[in-house]
Amino acid sequence: MDNLDLMREISVSSPTKILLVVMDGLGGLPSPKTGKTELETANTPNLDQLAGKGLCGLIDPVSPGIIPGSAPAHLALFGYDPFRFKVGRGVVEAMGIDFELKPGDIAARGNFCTVDKAGLVTDRRAGRISTEKCAELCQLLDGWMIDGVKIFVSPVKEHRFITVFRGKGLEPEVSDSDPQQVGIAPQTIIALNPKASVMATVANKFIAQARKALANHHPANMVLLRGFSRRPNLPTMPAVYKLKPAAIASYPMYRGLARLVGMAVLETGASIKEEFDTLKQNYNNYDFFFLHIKGTDSAGEDGDFERKARVIEEVDSALPVLLRLEPDVIVVTGDHSTPALLRGHSWHPVPIILYSRWCRPDKVDRFSESACISGGLGRFPATQVMPLAMAHALKLTKFGA
Amino acid sequence: MDNLDLMREISVSSPTKILLVVMDGLGGLPSPKTGKTELETANTPNLDQLAGKGLCGLIDPVSPGIIPGSAPAHLALFGYDPFRFKVGRGVVEAMGIDFELKPGDIAARGNFCTVDKAGLVTDRRAGRISTEKCAELCQLLDGWMIDGVKIFVSPVKEHRFITVFRGKGLEPEVSDSDPQQVGIAPQTIIALNPKASVMATVANKFIAQARKALANHHPANMVLLRGFSRRPNLPTMPAVYKLKPAAIASYPMYRGLARLVGMAVLETGASIKEEFDTLKQNYNNYDFFFLHIKGTDSAGEDGDFERKARVIEEVDSALPVLLRLEPDVIVVTGDHSTPALLRGHSWHPVPIILYSRWCRPDKVDRFSESACISGGLGRFPATQVMPLAMAHALKLTKFGA
Repeated sequence: MDNLDLMREISVSSPTKILLVVMDGLGGLPSPKTGKTELETANTPNLDQLAGKGLCGLIDPVSPGIIPGSAPAHLALFGYDPFRFKVGRGVVEAMGIDFELKPGDIAARGNFCTVDKAGLVTDRRAGRISTEKCAELCQLLDGWMIDGVKIFVSPVKEHRFITVFRGKGLEPEVSDSDPQQVGIAPQTIIALNPKASVMATVANKFIAQARKALANHHPANMVLLRGFSRRPNLPTMPAVYKLKPAAIASYPMYRGLARLVGMAVLETGASIKEEFDTLKQNYNNYDFFFLHIKGTDSAGEDGDFERKARVIEEVDSALPVLLRLEPDVIVVTGDHSTPALLRGHSWHPVPIILYSRWCRPDKVDRFSESACISGGLGRFPATQVMPLAMAHALKLTKFGA
Repeated sequence: MDNLDLMREISVSSPTKILLVVMDGLGGLPSPKTGKTELETANTPNLDQLAGKGLCGLIDPVSPGIIPGSAPAHLALFGYDPFRFKVGRGVVEAMGIDFELKPGDIAARGNFCTVDKAGLVTDRRAGRISTEKCAELCQLLDGWMIDGVKIFVSPVKEHRFITVFRGKGLEPEVSDSDPQQVGIAPQTIIALNPKASVMATVANKFIAQARKALANHHPANMVLLRGFSRRPNLPTMPAVYKLKPAAIASYPMYRGLARLVGMAVLETGASIKEEFDTLKQNYNNYDFFFLHIKGTDSAGEDGDFERKARVIEEVDSALPVLLRLEPDVIVVTGDHSTPALLRGHSWHPVPIILYSRWCRPDKVDRFSESACISGGLGRFPATQVMPLAMAHALKLTKFGA
């Protein structure tokens, strides 16, 4: 039985409140100098106290060994099987710039790239042009109509942009034009399903026109498209869990993911303190809060071990603001690991605290990767976090007679 | 999503190397005298040091409580779901004597047995005749043609032999003739699928002719056949993992299993030292090595606790040869447990070490069943060993956007 079907069957609405704090990329690897991870290096008296009162463990966002993208990692935390519910690359990028996708829209991730006279790709990133240059070039391509399909082109960062196709009869099952390597020509987009032939035709015409429009803009003299996808129709958290959920996230992509699962997305400042204040101000209006902290992941991606530890300390210092609200269930975890040593997402399992007055505490009194190994939650799939949080909030009824 | 489909999607070729050392039947049970298992009794400074630097845990070869055969246990270690990918008994036995099965061949496991004048089985193993006698009797039956089907009969050990049927229109879905008990007659082989009627007819004719040919060879005056099966068409490790894998195993069955999943099978001497030398000599030519050590299992099957401990010590002493090659990932484990106290395969989970410079070490610094309980890998299905090894060798890309 699917997790969500089970939850839909046994969840009940109640006044209890659940708080899910996600430090993006929380899990780390030990520094060769000290043998301690970022989390173990940070001074975290409040998190340690919460670990002492609660249950600890380690979660596998997707499955052991798998490096999760942000979308599957978050969907798993919200209880959605990341193998069943997929969000395409184009949609994720569009959400990342707060582009409002309408139901039939098809989004694709784009790269400005460089091609030589023979049309072969020589640089898939067009020398990483500036974001300003990207925005200027996007304006050249934005707003076209091809075969009755309106095309939106919006800059993301450096050479990256999104293309959104809006019109009738568009289906996303088409191949990429991005060959993912240099020395060969951009690929003709092919319909992988007969229904997607209009999409393939329009996309190929767009690319041909874009090449002409960009002819004099070397090194950004061509485009590569990939990850054609449509906003998926996900079951919503209100329908599945009977919750009134709200998201507090400063990065657009996470706000977009929260919207996909039916959360209200609250306006918030970007700092940790501002996010916590937003929660405090809205505390009476919702019974589930997803609070997303991006700084841990950004520092990890930058390879900045010390900064990642400091972001964790900043969350720890602000934590009493949340604790004073006395939520019935507090979960503190990450969506995946981003060890500074690897400068990117990794497969390592992620430490988690689950606190509730109804939890059966373990002996862990330190929030760290190594301490969590012996926690009472054990090592388990991230998709089980929501059922556990719901249970500890007394929001689940008995299963079976 | 199936493990292999996922790996096929996200695996990439890279120069890093993975070494999978399988001590067959490694897991044990404590001696009533000392309270220590075979592994805990052995003096293993090198394995303990590796455990200290790496991650430890316990694997369930098939699932908790299930006693695995060698084929499912190995397939699981290679990442193949043992419930989905099955290798029939006949095929396993044929591989065990290096019989080269062609694509359409059907193999069955055979027993010489004793029947009385009424045709009832009195001994399913014909008094465990010698292997020499078995070979002599196999020659009487080998090479027959029945209804255009060529029949090969080859000795295995004592009363055991294999029969391979080669011809057109043969399908393996037929019942066994072996009644698995004495006091009743060998069963008529029945087609369990209409397509398998030729196979059933030929097998029944073979058995009738064999009975005549063996009439004067009491106690081996009849044959019992079971486990009719065809060599399965498994996805290969090069296709799934983009690896160039090699197997070092002295027992034919394990070489056969390795061939089934597309490994190169290296010529090797049978001793542990010779196997390790084979690895060293071939180290530059492959990026994945499956090194199989049989002695642990044989000692366990013989109920020889001390010998099993000594084989483990021998592996430990030779280990520096492998460590000096500095593979990127080293996995040391077993395919299943074979406690000397049980004199056979058992369901007990199997200790595992996974070492890589990218592992997040735990506090286990002793390679033993009891220490592995608190290891950072936790307790997990053997099918996840390969995804973890691939991840730690940086051979997997991100899943999802």
